[in-house]
Amino acid sequence: MITTCVHISVNPENKDSFILATIENYRESVKEPGNLRFDFLQQADDPCRFMLYEAFESEDAASSHKNTCHYLKWRSTVAEYMAEPRTGIKYLIIEPNDRTKW
Amino acid sequence: MITTCVHISVNPENKDSFILATIENYRESVKEPGNLRFDFLQQADDPCRFMLYEAFESEDAASSHKNTCHYLKWRSTVAEYMAEPRTGIKYLIIEPNDRTKW
Repeated sequence: MITTCVHISVNPENKDSFILATIENYRESVKEPGNLRFDFLQQADDPCRFMLYEAFESEDAASSHKNTCHYLKWRSTVAEYMAEPRTGIKYLIIEPNDRTKW
Repeated sequence: MITTCVHISVNPENKDSFILATIENYRESVKEPGNLRFDFLQQADDPCRFMLYEAFESEDAASSHKNTCHYLKWRSTVAEYMAEPRTGIKYLIIEPNDRTKW
């Protein structure tokens, strides 16, 4: 199991469009067979900053996500909304170490 | 519902002790009635950096966590392990917006 936290900062004028596009991506991403979580969060003290908390059952499942139509559509749609390049940080999972708790 | 990401950097010589203390804290935290998640993650490219992904059903539940015996014990135990002060970032939850999906 593997988790990636994607940190995103968008232009204020694109915030609402970004949220709509990302909800659409969320709805399809959680249907992927290897997906464990795909939480979409908005920073409490800055409404233009977001985090995606993406957990997959394997590196392969995480890689497969980046080849899906919904991911490619999202990436293309939001490209012009970015206020700065987004960053992803990979984490190994210590707990819960039981697959059924995801 | 509210999420806090706690970013932690520990001294290399304290890494294993930190992991043990945090697993103990994880096991008790997920039993709290208002807890939704308490994921304990290790940064893939730096084994001395960790993240706690803490989701609670309300601000009150998140505040209550900080008054529990297990949290206070953890905070006291790990204080000397920190390589730098830990930071917490609060997030509002956009998706999943359904309580049953947590």
